Amino acid sequence: MIVPSNPESVFTYGAPALKFGSGASAEIGFDLGQYGVRRVLVLTDAGVAATGAPARIAEQIAGFGMHAEVYDGVHVEPTDESLLAAIGHARASGPWDAFVAVGGGSSIDTAKAVNLLSTNPGELMDYINAPIGAGRAPSHPLKPLVAVPTTTGTGSESTTICVLDVLGLKVKTGISHARLRPVLAVVDPDLTMTQPPEVTAAAGMDILCHALESYTARPYTSYERRRPEERVPYCGSNPVADMWSEQAIRLLAGSFRTAVRRGDDAEARGAMALAATFAGLGFGNAGVHIPQPTPIRSRGG
Amino acid sequence: MIVPSNPESVFTYGAPALKFGSGASAEIGFDLGQYGVRRVLVLTDAGVAATGAPARIAEQIAGFGMHAEVYDGVHVEPTDESLLAAIGHARASGPWDAFVAVGGGSSIDTAKAVNLLSTNPGELMDYINAPIGAGRAPSHPLKPLVAVPTTTGTGSESTTICVLDVLGLKVKTGISHARLRPVLAVVDPDLTMTQPPEVTAAAGMDILCHALESYTARPYTSYERRRPEERVPYCGSNPVADMWSEQAIRLLAGSFRTAVRRGDDAEARGAMALAATFAGLGFGNAGVHIPQPTPIRSRGG
Repeated sequence: MIVPSNPESVFTYGAPALKFGSGASAEIGFDLGQYGVRRVLVLTDAGVAATGAPARIAEQIAGFGMHAEVYDGVHVEPTDESLLAAIGHARASGPWDAFVAVGGGSSIDTAKAVNLLSTNPGELMDYINAPIGAGRAPSHPLKPLVAVPTTTGTGSESTTICVLDVLGLKVKTGISHARLRPVLAVVDPDLTMTQPPEVTAAAGMDILCHALESYTARPYTSYERRRPEERVPYCGSNPVADMWSEQAIRLLAGSFRTAVRRGDDAEARGAMALAATFAGLGFGNAGVHIPQPTPIRSRGG
Repeated sequence: MIVPSNPESVFTYGAPALKFGSGASAEIGFDLGQYGVRRVLVLTDAGVAATGAPARIAEQIAGFGMHAEVYDGVHVEPTDESLLAAIGHARASGPWDAFVAVGGGSSIDTAKAVNLLSTNPGELMDYINAPIGAGRAPSHPLKPLVAVPTTTGTGSESTTICVLDVLGLKVKTGISHARLRPVLAVVDPDLTMTQPPEVTAAAGMDILCHALESYTARPYTSYERRRPEERVPYCGSNPVADMWSEQAIRLLAGSFRTAVRRGDDAEARGAMALAATFAGLGFGNAGVHIPQPTPIRSRGG
């Protein structure tokens, strides 16, 4: 274990506002109205679009006097090419005052990139983490992004990260900045009921990995003290992130098997949706890591 | 117990971003720089001003090229008169781009009212909760408010509420709106070390009451379903608020007596500061209540 000479004494915590529960996604028009927006782009993938949820949400937004359009070209596991297509669409059809992402992590991450590149100058590679990209920070504020997860796993609604594959380099990387975080997460378990068992299982393992990796991440106190400009959203495990991770694991333990076996069990779906949200709030601040295959290892050591 | 005919299924959760730990208050200049502000008003009371902390924070902000002034006229337990004086000062010396409250709940609550009334038209009584005031909602966005608690109790850094005494009516009431919530809570246990034992004890009981009242508040599901425009920041006990409350009580159990007896115990002061923050994050969403003197009572019943 590395012992810092001047240990970090400060941790940070950020989160979107949360609206959780059955029916929460039927109130997005009202919520967007609070931000004083006029033109709203709803981003989703073709599979989620086929469930009808994104169109319902767009209609509901329009009912509050706003203009809302659906873009269903999100690529599952976004690539630089799919993000460029979405950004190109948003730039050509904009300006947009707000974005709503309906779907799994792919839709939410795509919306983060679209929000960034339609409010800030430059191109995608300018903002991708170094050394793949230039790791540039946004110079202008972003527009409000509302994230509506339809899988119980991603946690992207809570994080500052957009993950993508850069096809030409055969590498998976990301864009990370505090301004990418959605302003509001609308978690409606009703939207997750149609996940097939395999998706429920895979997404549930995602929750478990998020919570465990966040809980066992190096503690923030194990780093050298950072200057304020060196702070990053993923600051290491800390008392706040630990609490979310513990509770996510507890919820999983009580609901994961039921949600896979009986997809229509509303209570299990609700607990899984809450577990995914909690794990996102934890790892969105502590960070995740590649667990080492060391058989016996003290926590955070 | 009242059983709703159409029970609420949605709860909401909001919180400021958090920067926690020894030395956190020495980074406020950098943090304010992220909001692109130029003129910053630091609000405090005379007692806290005498510790030198507000002046140090203002100097540190000025070191980042911003103009910062200290207003130390906050009244401990704010009144309509003391708020009007602070609002008058801010309006006359403004416009201000951001506010920093350094102190207990009185300073933070005063800053909320000053922020509201220097960004929105009308007078104090227009915004005070009905039926005492007109219960008007702000029509314009507020400026960023950074809350820096120096007592371990208030929780005001996390809430949407400003509490005040209306002297002419001999009544304690408040102003509550989601926009009053600070954007950033900077919780630096170093600033809490000078609390005398009586203050540590009284403020610690405040934590306990916040956590217990929030934990035993009527659950959100015990209310009739609200329309989105009827939702209030205090939505009843819920899984998120419960988690904060439980953890606040656990932290208190391990640190309260030590913090009162040995005010220089940094670990106990840190745990109390965290407990106060957690309790604020809980009751700032669930709400508080007047516990009923019923000896045996099932939870939330």
